Amino acid sequence: MTDMPNSRDRDLRRRAEAVIPGGMYGHQSVGLLPEDYPQYFASGEGAHLTDVDGRRYLDLMCAYGPNLFGYANPQIDAAYVRQLEKGDALTGPGPAMVELAEAFVAMVTHADWAMFCKNGTDATSMAMVTARAHTKRKTLVLAKGAYHGAAPWCTPRPTGTTAEDKANQVHCVYNDIASLEAAVAKAGDDIAAIFAAPFRHDAFIDQAAPDPAYARRARELADQTGALLVVDDVRGGLRVARDCSWSKLGVQPDLSTWGKCIANGHPISALLGNDKCRAAAASIYVTGSFWYAGAAMAASLETLKLVRETDYLERIEALGDKLRDGLAERAQAAGFGFRQTGPVTMPLFLFDDDRDLRKGFCWSSAMLERGVYVHPWHNMFLCAAMTEADIDAALDAAEGAFKVLKREAPTLGPVEKLAFLAG
Amino acid sequence: MTDMPNSRDRDLRRRAEAVIPGGMYGHQSVGLLPEDYPQYFASGEGAHLTDVDGRRYLDLMCAYGPNLFGYANPQIDAAYVRQLEKGDALTGPGPAMVELAEAFVAMVTHADWAMFCKNGTDATSMAMVTARAHTKRKTLVLAKGAYHGAAPWCTPRPTGTTAEDKANQVHCVYNDIASLEAAVAKAGDDIAAIFAAPFRHDAFIDQAAPDPAYARRARELADQTGALLVVDDVRGGLRVARDCSWSKLGVQPDLSTWGKCIANGHPISALLGNDKCRAAAASIYVTGSFWYAGAAMAASLETLKLVRETDYLERIEALGDKLRDGLAERAQAAGFGFRQTGPVTMPLFLFDDDRDLRKGFCWSSAMLERGVYVHPWHNMFLCAAMTEADIDAALDAAEGAFKVLKREAPTLGPVEKLAFLAG
Repeated sequence: MTDMPNSRDRDLRRRAEAVIPGGMYGHQSVGLLPEDYPQYFASGEGAHLTDVDGRRYLDLMCAYGPNLFGYANPQIDAAYVRQLEKGDALTGPGPAMVELAEAFVAMVTHADWAMFCKNGTDATSMAMVTARAHTKRKTLVLAKGAYHGAAPWCTPRPTGTTAEDKANQVHCVYNDIASLEAAVAKAGDDIAAIFAAPFRHDAFIDQAAPDPAYARRARELADQTGALLVVDDVRGGLRVARDCSWSKLGVQPDLSTWGKCIANGHPISALLGNDKCRAAAASIYVTGSFWYAGAAMAASLETLKLVRETDYLERIEALGDKLRDGLAERAQAAGFGFRQTGPVTMPLFLFDDDRDLRKGFCWSSAMLERGVYVHPWHNMFLCAAMTEADIDAALDAAEGAFKVLKREAPTLGPVEKLAFLAG
Repeated sequence: MTDMPNSRDRDLRRRAEAVIPGGMYGHQSVGLLPEDYPQYFASGEGAHLTDVDGRRYLDLMCAYGPNLFGYANPQIDAAYVRQLEKGDALTGPGPAMVELAEAFVAMVTHADWAMFCKNGTDATSMAMVTARAHTKRKTLVLAKGAYHGAAPWCTPRPTGTTAEDKANQVHCVYNDIASLEAAVAKAGDDIAAIFAAPFRHDAFIDQAAPDPAYARRARELADQTGALLVVDDVRGGLRVARDCSWSKLGVQPDLSTWGKCIANGHPISALLGNDKCRAAAASIYVTGSFWYAGAAMAASLETLKLVRETDYLERIEALGDKLRDGLAERAQAAGFGFRQTGPVTMPLFLFDDDRDLRKGFCWSSAMLERGVYVHPWHNMFLCAAMTEADIDAALDAAEGAFKVLKREAPTLGPVEKLAFLAG
């Protein structure tokens, strides 16, 4: 142990270097974050995280989405533990599986049925297989750069995958109707599905609300061609609506995929579908060792109860508005072009004229130092455990962070690890 | 509610018909089991299950593997709950991830590193991608009929998948050296990996121990061609050895995959590898929303502690021997050809002259009626919560069940739903 403020984090990273390839993997790696970001956390409570060196943060990442009602939410975790004591992974499911399917079908307009799995990628992969089984065709229409999971067919990094893994895919530009029409035309009579994120939430670029005309056109094209329309709500689900996110646009998909926060961080994801593709969903073989485990289902039932019975969404929207307005004001006062995009409940912040994110890194580090965990290039997530006081604290931190940035901006060097963004 | 003894199960199935495609999906569906098998369970404790209609069983399926130290094991579940209270899915991993990687590396001879995921299929898919990244080649050599998961590249039912999903695969016959050599030759200079189950544990057929010469030849061929050798220990792991299962043969793979019981039913799986393929594993993009959650890691640490510090394996082997010997004796006394295959800790029972399993179904139903849950065509699993008294009870039940079969055998009709087996 040293006297460095992050000595426990450094020590864990050193140990991990020995027993985990590259020291860390996947979306929670801090490899592409500023150097001072902690990799390891000791605990979470409500809207706050404590890292292994004892520093506490207001967490605007919410575990990359799973935290919707607060870390260690007593009501949801109690439901988990009660079911754990009765039985979790058994030789068959328990009543909670049926109750949870009923709860989703009652809540989500387009859904006539539900299937449960563990990863978001399980749900999107099942949507793909269901669409191919239903249509007896192969081609998927996807938006360029959209994230639908980390299996070989959809992973953003092709290393170790084959051309065949991504065969039968045609890409379009999100929100560009002509491009969508061209992609559907290119898929021709082999089209199985049109996949869509509820809004554009790609990393490193401004988020974009869905153009209602684009959403309606996707629905029309699916109907005309017999393809299934899939809305991938793994990331956006329950932070945009108490229904599939595109229901706000009056567009109902055939399939929707859910995960992350549907059990407030307990491991479960879901594929929901309508009657049109019920037989196809019943015909595919998908499974997992822990897919029928009851505890996460009990936690999801409790989460959906809070979704139905509380004003959580209106509250996080109001907090998100307050955060967005307050940041805009402070950025303007400091003289920065500061773009806030995405739903206010899932914001992403980017500075103007900041291709390699040197300003974003500097500002984010200054926020971190002031006790607010923000992400410089991935959308963030608000949760219902946040309070007005938390947002005030974030805004105070931001005022200080903009000052730091103003002072340091003229001398900031390039962010080597993000050099690819400038290329 | 009716007075039928399975009225709650029937009621749940009726409700599920409405909101789950086909009423149920995946490996825990009772669709291919005798009609009297319950689909829904209320609770599990130690080696016993209680179904939703209150009937209690000695459970020889152990949740299809996850139950190794008893359902609701107090020590393991307490570790889970302690970590849950501190933090489960957070914005980064906790120290438990490093500790668990260290524990696996210390326990498994071939392993220099570990990566954690949720499904067994995640681990086998990561093995495939790692092997392709390491070799910069594509072709996998797999044994015909071996189960390595339910993703499009490996699912046993092709509905909704494409020819491209299973491209770059060559098949051999398990334990047949000439067939393995031919498959490797066919893969030629494109070979990326040789996959192997630790023993042949395909459904519907006799299990088979690995021929040590086959295992050694697989290792040699991998070394000669530069391919990686993968042992898929998701199902067999920790019930054959306190190490990778092939370590008993003196054969060390490059990669091994683990899941099911490594946290005694809590949701976590793992890919372990050696230094040869560390860089490749670090180069791939794989992730999941709940992969870094601490509670299942804490439960796995406690499970591995019990693996290291108790005689669980010797005890379940002794119980397995007692069960196998006792069943053989009773089957012979009743005049049945009754084949018991696989490790004694993971047995499968098949009757001679029973192509559509009509004898197996009759006997299994009679066991179920006598309070012992057996599976007529899938390997079973013993757990450390079983006692000699449990095995005695199973043997008493078997004696009765053989009598029932003897009486009913002459008039048994075909099992329509297994007609495909006779084809």
